[in-house]
Amino acid sequence: MKLSEIAKLIGAEFSAQDFEITAMNTLRDAKNTELSFVANTKYIKDIASSNAAAIICDATTKEYVPATTVALVVDAPYWQMAVITAQFAPALEDVNSPEATVGEGSVVSPKANLANGAIVGKNCNIMAGVYVGSNAVVGDNTTLYPNVVLYRDCKIGSDCTIHAGTVLGSDGFGFASDKMGIHKKIYHLGNVVIEDDVEIGSNTSIDRAVFGITLVKKGTRLDNLIHIAHNCEIGEYSVIAGQTGLAGSSKLGRSTVFGAQSGVAGHLEIAPFNRFAARTGVTKTIKESGKTFAGFPFMEHRLWLKIQVKLARLIK
Amino acid sequence: MKLSEIAKLIGAEFSAQDFEITAMNTLRDAKNTELSFVANTKYIKDIASSNAAAIICDATTKEYVPATTVALVVDAPYWQMAVITAQFAPALEDVNSPEATVGEGSVVSPKANLANGAIVGKNCNIMAGVYVGSNAVVGDNTTLYPNVVLYRDCKIGSDCTIHAGTVLGSDGFGFASDKMGIHKKIYHLGNVVIEDDVEIGSNTSIDRAVFGITLVKKGTRLDNLIHIAHNCEIGEYSVIAGQTGLAGSSKLGRSTVFGAQSGVAGHLEIAPFNRFAARTGVTKTIKESGKTFAGFPFMEHRLWLKIQVKLARLIK
Amino acid sequence: MKLSEIAKLIGAEFSAQDFEITAMNTLRDAKNTELSFVANTKYIKDIASSNAAAIICDATTKEYVPATTVALVVDAPYWQMAVITAQFAPALEDVNSPEATVGEGSVVSPKANLANGAIVGKNCNIMAGVYVGSNAVVGDNTTLYPNVVLYRDCKIGSDCTIHAGTVLGSDGFGFASDKMGIHKKIYHLGNVVIEDDVEIGSNTSIDRAVFGITLVKKGTRLDNLIHIAHNCEIGEYSVIAGQTGLAGSSKLGRSTVFGAQSGVAGHLEIAPFNRFAARTGVTKTIKESGKTFAGFPFMEHRLWLKIQVKLARLIK
Repeated sequence: MKLSEIAKLIGAEFSAQDFEITAMNTLRDAKNTELSFVANTKYIKDIASSNAAAIICDATTKEYVPATTVALVVDAPYWQMAVITAQFAPALEDVNSPEATVGEGSVVSPKANLANGAIVGKNCNIMAGVYVGSNAVVGDNTTLYPNVVLYRDCKIGSDCTIHAGTVLGSDGFGFASDKMGIHKKIYHLGNVVIEDDVEIGSNTSIDRAVFGITLVKKGTRLDNLIHIAHNCEIGEYSVIAGQTGLAGSSKLGRSTVFGAQSGVAGHLEIAPFNRFAARTGVTKTIKESGKTFAGFPFMEHRLWLKIQVKLARLIK
Repeated sequence: MKLSEIAKLIGAEFSAQDFEITAMNTLRDAKNTELSFVANTKYIKDIASSNAAAIICDATTKEYVPATTVALVVDAPYWQMAVITAQFAPALEDVNSPEATVGEGSVVSPKANLANGAIVGKNCNIMAGVYVGSNAVVGDNTTLYPNVVLYRDCKIGSDCTIHAGTVLGSDGFGFASDKMGIHKKIYHLGNVVIEDDVEIGSNTSIDRAVFGITLVKKGTRLDNLIHIAHNCEIGEYSVIAGQTGLAGSSKLGRSTVFGAQSGVAGHLEIAPFNRFAARTGVTKTIKESGKTFAGFPFMEHRLWLKIQVKLARLIK
Repeated sequence: MKLSEIAKLIGAEFSAQDFEITAMNTLRDAKNTELSFVANTKYIKDIASSNAAAIICDATTKEYVPATTVALVVDAPYWQMAVITAQFAPALEDVNSPEATVGEGSVVSPKANLANGAIVGKNCNIMAGVYVGSNAVVGDNTTLYPNVVLYRDCKIGSDCTIHAGTVLGSDGFGFASDKMGIHKKIYHLGNVVIEDDVEIGSNTSIDRAVFGITLVKKGTRLDNLIHIAHNCEIGEYSVIAGQTGLAGSSKLGRSTVFGAQSGVAGHLEIAPFNRFAARTGVTKTIKESGKTFAGFPFMEHRLWLKIQVKLARLIK
């Protein structure tokens, strides 16, 4: 899409040399043909080092945009970013792509649905009611139980098992809101990648990234009814029990273990090899490894146990 | 159904002039051809002003039923109400209705299933595995991702996006129980209405009303794995994050914002423009607007923060 | 499968008379042609009375295995048990079984999928997108709403209603882990049995047993988005509200009532006729009946109410 058209859609002045914008991305990840945005002062620090070709900004953040980058100045950069995501969202299915390809030895139910451009590896089982979207990829020896949904452009590795009703790649819970509280959808242009040897229970939901990847690394085990929001990253060999939820952009290190009904707030990082009792609510980044936590607000498990005893006494 | 037949089914005496009962409803909403019931003393106040043609009641509530209304006196009105809901429940599908109609520009997957009498608007996307029940209505420009289920008689507005695996219109969690703890199903005769410009995440469940409507008003955003019980009402432009649950008949005002894993007890009202931190448990009606709450039992967020500090000190 | 082959797969010495192992099971339930294992010192007490033909054990537990039982000695019995479950897991579908049978008066959507060997009773409704696995059984007068998934070998009784998107019989959250934190899948060889007159809401997940049965007894009511882990047992006429989760092997007595968003830890027993407020977290076995509990850690409800008052005072 031409940068001039983008500028017009969002009501930004634009008089520079026109060129083609190939995609949208964050300031950190944008390539030199891509459009980015700054809508929060905490990302001003990322502007100078960004490779973005153009940046949607407002009058106050404009001054941080280098002269070599096009600044598209608007009143509400986050809202206008949301407006433009709709332009880059692909069709729901690529009807003109070639038919799905299925590897040798795979069994695909006649009641499954592989969209054009889907790729299924060897020795897979794709059961009834499964949906594999355009350009979605399923590795070898992977089983998708009935009614699993893999949205377009998402990827599942080899030797994975995904149980019935699980949804991988739905749009994340992201939108811009104006002063009246009216919301503008952010089309999620990223995807979900599930690496090899992952098992996911039934009726779990993993949202695609806004830009980039929601990532579940190899060897991880996820239980039923888990909610993984956009842009999360789950380290290798992690174990997450039922009904746990992760808010957006949180990153869990290798071998993280969560008891059931736990929660993780957004934009946190959890160092590898930590364990969390059931119902823990993690509200801060954790930099140490090898500990066990519990409670909400969370604390070390041994402290939590002591507090239960003290509280019991205080109350008597 | 003739009132005499209803009386016979529930073992109530009936000697008045017979007439046709067209539906069941609450005391407040019943029209003058409808049957209602009183099974809880707190609803006695609604009897006098009810337009119901007949009321299932017991020996003690009978005296409040006006002479112009038929009183069907039974030992267990709630149980007998449940018995009669089965009589008014429509067939699962209206096989004799005309085939579903689909508006211009809509794309319906050959692996979707539109029941007879379903109505799909213009420029919709109805993807594989979607089910749209009899007399269910989908507005214009709406996308139903794979395996969405819209039960019969439910309605989705225009410009909506419903993500994969979400279920709209399942029977609510309602039943009568006898003294032995045996349960009698209440067939849910109401529906779900989703207004325009609503986005709902994946694997969310919204139950149909017992009578009347479970309502999600325009511009609202619901995340994944949310549970909305029968007869709830969610105000315009509300935002509800993942794994939150609302018990039956609660009403949220405009622009209510819930963090993830929150809960709302039944039969509450929440004034507009309130916000709730993740994991808040709302146990009482909230009449003030513009506040932020947290905790369980819930309180104002700033108080909750103070308490965390005080608790930490007390424990040391 | 020959015992000698099993021994070879797990690297155990074996020089006794060879024979056919028909199945795997727990020490308690194993029959005299079945293979069991001991991987936790707390089960040593079950070895002497076990009828198992052979037991996977390690060097220290070997001494408890009677001379009449074959001991397969390995370094990591739990891991090797997991390895062997893969050998006893049946095919995803029995393609050589006869076509599914459907009783008189039943309506099966042409968009439902009944695997070979499935058995559907009389007067059932099997709606679009439903999957009924091989050898799965559905009793009479039962309704499976769209996109319900019943895994192979699972059973639903008569007069049941299962709402859309619910999954019965997915593999439980069980795996062996080595010292590096790498996980080995345990194929779940048991099933799920739902007795008569049970109603289950939408998008609920009930996992099959590792060995044996995950059991929901007659007359029970389960709400939406509930998680029931492997090997649980839910007593007759129980009531479990939305988003509640039960960890593995817990047993609830008759007429247990759970408010929404509650949780039960694993391997507990709850005596009949107890009630739990919303969000209760049950962490211990309950031997008394007829009480009401609340909180996490849980306590009697009246105590919980007192504590809220005391805490409020302490904080002031």
